[in-house]
Amino acid sequence: MDIVRPTLVLDKEVCLRNIRQMAEKAKAKKLFFRPHFKTHQSAEIGAWFRDFGVTAITVSSVSMAKYFAQHGWDDITIAIPANIHEIDEINRLAAKIKLNLLVENKETLGQLVRLVEHPVGLFIEIDTGHFRTGILAGRTNQIDSLLSMVEDHPFLNFKGFLTHSGQTYKANSRHEIFNFHFDSLLKMRSLKDNYKRDFPDLIISMGDTPSASICENFDGVDEFRPGNFVFYDLMQLQLGACTFDDIAVRLVCPVIAKNESRNEVVVYGGAIHLSKDYIMNVDGKRLFGQIVIRDKGTKILLNEKNYLHDMSQEHGIIKTTYKDFHLFRVGDWVEIIPVHSCLTANLMGSYQTTDGEIITMAPR
Amino acid sequence: MDIVRPTLVLDKEVCLRNIRQMAEKAKAKKLFFRPHFKTHQSAEIGAWFRDFGVTAITVSSVSMAKYFAQHGWDDITIAIPANIHEIDEINRLAAKIKLNLLVENKETLGQLVRLVEHPVGLFIEIDTGHFRTGILAGRTNQIDSLLSMVEDHPFLNFKGFLTHSGQTYKANSRHEIFNFHFDSLLKMRSLKDNYKRDFPDLIISMGDTPSASICENFDGVDEFRPGNFVFYDLMQLQLGACTFDDIAVRLVCPVIAKNESRNEVVVYGGAIHLSKDYIMNVDGKRLFGQIVIRDKGTKILLNEKNYLHDMSQEHGIIKTTYKDFHLFRVGDWVEIIPVHSCLTANLMGSYQTTDGEIITMAPR
Repeated sequence: MDIVRPTLVLDKEVCLRNIRQMAEKAKAKKLFFRPHFKTHQSAEIGAWFRDFGVTAITVSSVSMAKYFAQHGWDDITIAIPANIHEIDEINRLAAKIKLNLLVENKETLGQLVRLVEHPVGLFIEIDTGHFRTGILAGRTNQIDSLLSMVEDHPFLNFKGFLTHSGQTYKANSRHEIFNFHFDSLLKMRSLKDNYKRDFPDLIISMGDTPSASICENFDGVDEFRPGNFVFYDLMQLQLGACTFDDIAVRLVCPVIAKNESRNEVVVYGGAIHLSKDYIMNVDGKRLFGQIVIRDKGTKILLNEKNYLHDMSQEHGIIKTTYKDFHLFRVGDWVEIIPVHSCLTANLMGSYQTTDGEIITMAPR
Repeated sequence: MDIVRPTLVLDKEVCLRNIRQMAEKAKAKKLFFRPHFKTHQSAEIGAWFRDFGVTAITVSSVSMAKYFAQHGWDDITIAIPANIHEIDEINRLAAKIKLNLLVENKETLGQLVRLVEHPVGLFIEIDTGHFRTGILAGRTNQIDSLLSMVEDHPFLNFKGFLTHSGQTYKANSRHEIFNFHFDSLLKMRSLKDNYKRDFPDLIISMGDTPSASICENFDGVDEFRPGNFVFYDLMQLQLGACTFDDIAVRLVCPVIAKNESRNEVVVYGGAIHLSKDYIMNVDGKRLFGQIVIRDKGTKILLNEKNYLHDMSQEHGIIKTTYKDFHLFRVGDWVEIIPVHSCLTANLMGSYQTTDGEIITMAPR
């Protein structure tokens, strides 16, 4: 591979395996697979999903919907509470593609009722315990008041209930991911039971990456929206949602300095490449990335005593041990496994596959 | 202003005042002003510096040097230990402009000695207490061994000693910034005293934003390289390096949801807009941004009980008080004062001035 500066390297084989496995799981569970594309943000990677039968996607902004619509996707859900200031772009998109929006409050829905000019699918966001946005499943009076606003509306078509059980990202164990998942499932099923008489076709949409990766029971769920699984990362590894071999991206950086008295190695590659998301290391310190080096031609994943422990804008500082310090030489390339691949990909803006192919992303 | 989604708004007047003040300080102290352009990364903002007599700049990567060279800058220091893998680009730049590189180890310098094909200025990086990269000022044997490698080299011209006293960013008080500054000053002056017989023109280059902003004694310093001051941010405010009115950028975001039971307000604007750098709030929690709202036409800076306390990729969650919760309405715009303006600007990729002018940045 011909690289000279920090580069986000993508293992296409691993990525395709991740996509295949999730697509097969969706099929086996009879779930409509509408993967979230916010992690890769790339039309080329998006196209790989088509080979696995994917025809509809999820995104997290109007801008991203516009980008993927320009690249041939014509069935898109924007899974963030609608921002009414983007109504002109929403109308332009709705005129061209099957567009679904997310609502969770009367203020925004009231504006949509007034301003939407083309058919739009409407999902009501349910908060099943993430405590970010959405209506609690038990507050059906709030749901009813939203539904009453769109009854007989010429363009706004209620589609169903959508939740992002993001609480799974804060689970302390795989066991707790199951707990969160079954709790969300119970709440979403109860909504389905309550509303299916009036809306026989209503869709229950779920699918955070942790539960999508390890849970097997999706009874009552119709639509499946995981996103991060396309690459996975250290956060998912720590949660037990993937194995190390499932992680498809790494930031490849050159060593530019070493400090023997502190057993530290400095790479060119910092906060503007990797992002400052972290997990806690076993020593109670922040860990910004794990390290893979090449020793006599063999790749070695270093243990948690050798890790990316600090960053500035362009510098990354790897804490090493006395024992392993000698493995690093100035000029060597090290691979940094990212903590949060979505943020790293967003910062890097393009990928290079292990075969040297350059893969572009949505322009910023 | 006509904005519909998260937008980085730049107050040009404040920015120009920040530039003028720093340029005047440099002049008063007889320092050669070589501002760091890594914060704004914009050719247009760069051009504003020319009106204050700036002819030479600092950047933190070869890519950034290339971008600014394309925009007419012909005297550039790349203030990160040289990455030898970029030697081809370094040679192309050195053929066209006055280029200065930073070195701190024999491995990289040995390669430069072999591979540099055009005149290049060389700064030796000194670590005055930041403990990131550089040689300790007292380890003159290491400095001498680097100097001996470039003696009589046809292209590599030793220019002087450069330090980034980044330890000031971790100071607990203004008083401690002064301590760090005087400590760095002593070390750099001692080097000047040691080496000025052999190198009568040697340059002492300093200038982190905290000390550049508040310290007055720069005796013995020749070159001044602050960068962040162009915008400042909450980190600098917390350090006492600026006032609130000196902060020139803010991320303007629409409110998309409110949660009364948690007194939380959710904006469209998250980690891919602001970055995840934080400072500690008075309540011991992470603070990702302070909040300015408009109440009956008047802008109000909310206190530290109302702050950006969490983020996901596109969502920002503002913790508010029962008392102030009613000030926020869905659809309103809020202004988020960034913790670290360099990372926010890098993510946003462009600015909109308060007059509505769009200002572009280096492409990613």
